[in-house]
Amino acid sequence: MSTNAMNIEPVGQVRAISSDKSSLEIEDRYVEALLGVEPGDKLQVLYWMHKLTADDRRRLRVHPRGDTARPIQGVFALRSPMRPNPVGVTVVEVTAIQGTRVVVNGLDALDGSPIIDLKNAG
Amino acid sequence: MSTNAMNIEPVGQVRAISSDKSSLEIEDRYVEALLGVEPGDKLQVLYWMHKLTADDRRRLRVHPRGDTARPIQGVFALRSPMRPNPVGVTVVEVTAIQGTRVVVNGLDALDGSPIIDLKNAG
Repeated sequence: MSTNAMNIEPVGQVRAISSDKSSLEIEDRYVEALLGVEPGDKLQVLYWMHKLTADDRRRLRVHPRGDTARPIQGVFALRSPMRPNPVGVTVVEVTAIQGTRVVVNGLDALDGSPIIDLKNAG
Repeated sequence: MSTNAMNIEPVGQVRAISSDKSSLEIEDRYVEALLGVEPGDKLQVLYWMHKLTADDRRRLRVHPRGDTARPIQGVFALRSPMRPNPVGVTVVEVTAIQGTRVVVNGLDALDGSPIIDLKNAG
């Protein structure tokens, strides 16, 4: 099979610990994929912004940061969470690893967000 | 509704023009989302790596860049295309815009890759 449907399987879930600290709770079946992830590493986290509604996904133009003093722009020119496919991408720093829990700084994802992927970010 | 399924709707398709030059062919119904995207902008392109097989998605550990001289690592510690959810993330530079066609430099996506999202990359 050379193609496949765009079906996403969550690999874990975000747990918000404090304003800047989160835990990436990776599912047991993906623990092997963490081999080589170490404290100090920068990771790019892809997650599903699960609180966005169907209406949010249909908004193609918004005021940047909701500031009505700023002119409306297309969501592809911004990083607004409003977008047709609500996939967030944020670079974080790993501070600790405990089994399938990866503690990170700098993730702006809401508690409970499904995790789609982790990638090395140099 | 405060949650939604992780259903991704492609917003367009990658057309590979040359080794470094691609066209992002955005679907007509998303043209409004391009307002404010201009030549010289850096965009983060999210795309589906549609040629990966179900077997590729199950490989959780690989040799970096397929180089067997390098020790095996987990895919979450790498940027290998092998990963449970084959979403590629690449920063590109916009060189031209013609309606719903955004010509970019630096995209390593295969021809025909479905586009998931474009985000401002500063």
